[in-house]
Amino acid sequence: MIQNKNKTLRDLLNTKKLSKVAGAHDGLSAKLAEKNGFDAIWASGLGISAIQTVPDASILTMTEFLEAAIIMNDSCNIPVIADCDSGFGNIHNVDRMIKKYESSGISGVCLEDKVFPKLNSFDDREQLLVSSKEFCAKIKTAKDSRVDNDFVIIARVEALIAGLGQDEAYNRAKAYSEAGADAILIHSKQKNPNEIVEFIKRWDLSTPLVVVPTKYPSITMGELENLGVRFSIYANQSLRASVKAMDEVLSNIMKNGSTEPIENKISNVSDIFDLQDIPKMKKREEIVYSK
Amino acid sequence: MIQNKNKTLRDLLNTKKLSKVAGAHDGLSAKLAEKNGFDAIWASGLGISAIQTVPDASILTMTEFLEAAIIMNDSCNIPVIADCDSGFGNIHNVDRMIKKYESSGISGVCLEDKVFPKLNSFDDREQLLVSSKEFCAKIKTAKDSRVDNDFVIIARVEALIAGLGQDEAYNRAKAYSEAGADAILIHSKQKNPNEIVEFIKRWDLSTPLVVVPTKYPSITMGELENLGVRFSIYANQSLRASVKAMDEVLSNIMKNGSTEPIENKISNVSDIFDLQDIPKMKKREEIVYSK
Amino acid sequence: MIQNKNKTLRDLLNTKKLSKVAGAHDGLSAKLAEKNGFDAIWASGLGISAIQTVPDASILTMTEFLEAAIIMNDSCNIPVIADCDSGFGNIHNVDRMIKKYESSGISGVCLEDKVFPKLNSFDDREQLLVSSKEFCAKIKTAKDSRVDNDFVIIARVEALIAGLGQDEAYNRAKAYSEAGADAILIHSKQKNPNEIVEFIKRWDLSTPLVVVPTKYPSITMGELENLGVRFSIYANQSLRASVKAMDEVLSNIMKNGSTEPIENKISNVSDIFDLQDIPKMKKREEIVYSK
Amino acid sequence: MIQNKNKTLRDLLNTKKLSKVAGAHDGLSAKLAEKNGFDAIWASGLGISAIQTVPDASILTMTEFLEAAIIMNDSCNIPVIADCDSGFGNIHNVDRMIKKYESSGISGVCLEDKVFPKLNSFDDREQLLVSSKEFCAKIKTAKDSRVDNDFVIIARVEALIAGLGQDEAYNRAKAYSEAGADAILIHSKQKNPNEIVEFIKRWDLSTPLVVVPTKYPSITMGELENLGVRFSIYANQSLRASVKAMDEVLSNIMKNGSTEPIENKISNVSDIFDLQDIPKMKKREEIVYSK
Repeated sequence: MIQNKNKTLRDLLNTKKLSKVAGAHDGLSAKLAEKNGFDAIWASGLGISAIQTVPDASILTMTEFLEAAIIMNDSCNIPVIADCDSGFGNIHNVDRMIKKYESSGISGVCLEDKVFPKLNSFDDREQLLVSSKEFCAKIKTAKDSRVDNDFVIIARVEALIAGLGQDEAYNRAKAYSEAGADAILIHSKQKNPNEIVEFIKRWDLSTPLVVVPTKYPSITMGELENLGVRFSIYANQSLRASVKAMDEVLSNIMKNGSTEPIENKISNVSDIFDLQDIPKMKKREEIVYSK
Repeated sequence: MIQNKNKTLRDLLNTKKLSKVAGAHDGLSAKLAEKNGFDAIWASGLGISAIQTVPDASILTMTEFLEAAIIMNDSCNIPVIADCDSGFGNIHNVDRMIKKYESSGISGVCLEDKVFPKLNSFDDREQLLVSSKEFCAKIKTAKDSRVDNDFVIIARVEALIAGLGQDEAYNRAKAYSEAGADAILIHSKQKNPNEIVEFIKRWDLSTPLVVVPTKYPSITMGELENLGVRFSIYANQSLRASVKAMDEVLSNIMKNGSTEPIENKISNVSDIFDLQDIPKMKKREEIVYSK
Repeated sequence: MIQNKNKTLRDLLNTKKLSKVAGAHDGLSAKLAEKNGFDAIWASGLGISAIQTVPDASILTMTEFLEAAIIMNDSCNIPVIADCDSGFGNIHNVDRMIKKYESSGISGVCLEDKVFPKLNSFDDREQLLVSSKEFCAKIKTAKDSRVDNDFVIIARVEALIAGLGQDEAYNRAKAYSEAGADAILIHSKQKNPNEIVEFIKRWDLSTPLVVVPTKYPSITMGELENLGVRFSIYANQSLRASVKAMDEVLSNIMKNGSTEPIENKISNVSDIFDLQDIPKMKKREEIVYSK
Repeated sequence: MIQNKNKTLRDLLNTKKLSKVAGAHDGLSAKLAEKNGFDAIWASGLGISAIQTVPDASILTMTEFLEAAIIMNDSCNIPVIADCDSGFGNIHNVDRMIKKYESSGISGVCLEDKVFPKLNSFDDREQLLVSSKEFCAKIKTAKDSRVDNDFVIIARVEALIAGLGQDEAYNRAKAYSEAGADAILIHSKQKNPNEIVEFIKRWDLSTPLVVVPTKYPSITMGELENLGVRFSIYANQSLRASVKAMDEVLSNIMKNGSTEPIENKISNVSDIFDLQDIPKMKKREEIVYSK
């Protein structure tokens, strides 16, 4: 089972078409992503932090991010890629992290070249990166520590986010590829896709590319596929939909003094029961007690 | 701090007006409830189970429910009442449960008179209750195990849910009050409030009453206050709003091939940052490094 | 890796010689068992409860027992069998339990036919069993829920502990075997091995037998092997050794006013460092930074 | 209850006599320390790491250290001081750490002026410290983040460990005191107490001193009390006693083929039952069911 999910993710990475990855923050958002046809789950650091109302700044621990990723993995049949920020410390923390994520059934991780503790890429404070050499040491460690070669290790380049330019981004991406990364996630916070497209067009190594079009939402899956991008991650739209919806419903209840006016704007209890696999539970009772 | 939240909840229980309690399933839903003016949080067993996509049937453990309640408590400044189902086993499990919840900063718990493992009250399978005597033993244990007398212990009567009638409901509620419950939660799954209203009107003890109008949404806060009800719990509307919103947004992204069409229907990243207390984090940096 | 440990345990079960299994209560006791040549680890319910100073009576939750078993599994290279008491509830709890233990890398579980919450088998209060039919439903569920057929499911018969006699023990063991148990653990609290030996000699099914000679310590590994027993579990001797040693050392420090007199009676800090894999950590630094 | 333990620890710090603090690694070692008359518990980073067989090098996360400290706190009635290493990151990690430890019932923490990730003080690799200014920012944050002024914040000076000399040690200790530390832990790895005694004799501020005489075991409680030291921490002797005892017993079982020869060298099962509070459990049954 575990092996199969790793293989599924590895196959998606090897296939020359765009896979759609949905950010999730809990089991429910993961299961809804699977239901809507996404290929894999992104266990989002921002999302997992947000549902605990703490900054996406290495405030939650590896243990807490891992637990959240396990819950997502238990809740769906598509593979989970865990957003592991800057690796929770040094190479020894990366070693433990890889062992824990892989042995827990997660199918891949993404490490970024920021310092620890990190800041969210869209935070307006200064973004600090570790040296390329230090980050390559983390990638090498990650590769040495994994057991199953299908377990995917993605290196995330934050040079554009940090304002260091295309050359630095390219050079880092190349070094990380050579250190053994299975894919390069190139990130941008510009409001149009120009910067990302420039990077993608320049990229001349065979290591596949991954993007997260949060800040440049106009780019389409078709365009990304034509550019040869392998994974497009829709990292936090579920979370943001959920915040708006909850805020409105809670406000409405207080304003109207009952839930009657919002009953038809929210899911039924029976929809929730279905997502909780109550039908499967009933079936189990039938099977086991009738045998 | 801990003491203050317990005191706040106890005061709400003692005040002769209706308090509004919002069901939450994570820190974010708790914080949004506080923002919208709710008085307290209901750490919902259904909600906590649902975000892990498991049945609300004692599948998650006390540890998992407790961790979820702690996250809610860390995320807001209003008190948290934890839905503790049937108490996770026998009196000894209740003893440990009370000690763990109280020492973790939760301000109250609700125990129901179902067997362990339980079923959700709206599940259509047979609802089994323990004897009144056995449940009274749990209430007595809970009272003996708490340290702070302001920590609130609510006894939930499932006799109407189980179809046992008004007399059984009244007799159980009376026994639980006499065993020391601080409040009685009377639950109903009828589609109109008649059954609940009948129970409330008959109630002649001073122990305050709590209701959860999920299935009879037409009843208003004003009506409940006039009936003398103390807490009205809106247990799962946030969850159901969030499921519908996430499902629609994920479907839309797959259909449209980009997130552009839904950007204005979801919260901004900056709204999320605010809920994560990024402004407070920046302020801490200023204060500590300038001192 | 995970697959390999399951396979190792399955092979031990299939091999017609006695395997020695050591009870552990944390990672350290598991690693010391491996170092001393034991074949597998018993993640002891008594031990895991004892280091938290709570009764072995279903007080800790499945989550807590699982976390402890994972720590043991991470700490050694031999397979871990988890003592899962009575399965933490009903068949649905067993379903989740199997999925969680297996996907976490544990290689086998043992379920006993007691009620939930259970009592330790050496507790002098009344020992209550579930019906054979109900326990068979749990075994069937466990088998349906596992993914890897090498994952071992042991059924523990408590009929002798409960004073129900040899016939009841035999009949239950037979029913559990037919329901699909991979092995039968037959338990006894008599101070000599007669009762156990009688059961073993009568046993005429091919399902292998497992024993835990805590209360009848005179029986030797040689005798057990001659009787055809497959696993002998030394369930709590490490724990009991540790309690005595800690108590004496703490008492001695308070009496003597310094630790000098006990320095040569305890392990060196460098021994602890070795058990913590500091040498491996240093080697990792060399390898990764020299590449 | 929580408040009382904080107050107890604060009073010990204010009283002009030596308090004896025992290092613990789990609930059992904490309870045995209390039984033997120790005044408080040191939730040892080395010990908690060791029982998971990982280096004492910031490998376990704050979550894991906190869970271990909570287990100790639940297991005894004396206050727990948590060894919090270098604070798990920057000032924001310290902020969350303080809030989590305090709200979980721990009575004090110790922060050291090493970098994150840290090394154990007795590790022979280079010991790196943060600047005094950066560490003072952590202390200020810790003070701002605590709610109860009785919650104790200890600043640990690693200048002697890092070979930086008495002046650096003194200057750092002074700066940390002025930044608000409630006590200074001065650490040494020399095999005799000269270095520590020199520091203590020079110390001219009113902030109390704490020592950990692991490497200089000849110094007595009487001598420390005469020097005016307030807390002496016996940080890892229980752990080391336990490792030696378990190793010997496991070896003996394999050698002798039965546990009979070691039965009188280890605690009885009934001793374990007492430490698990089985008598209290029986009493609860009597009380609750007879009322």
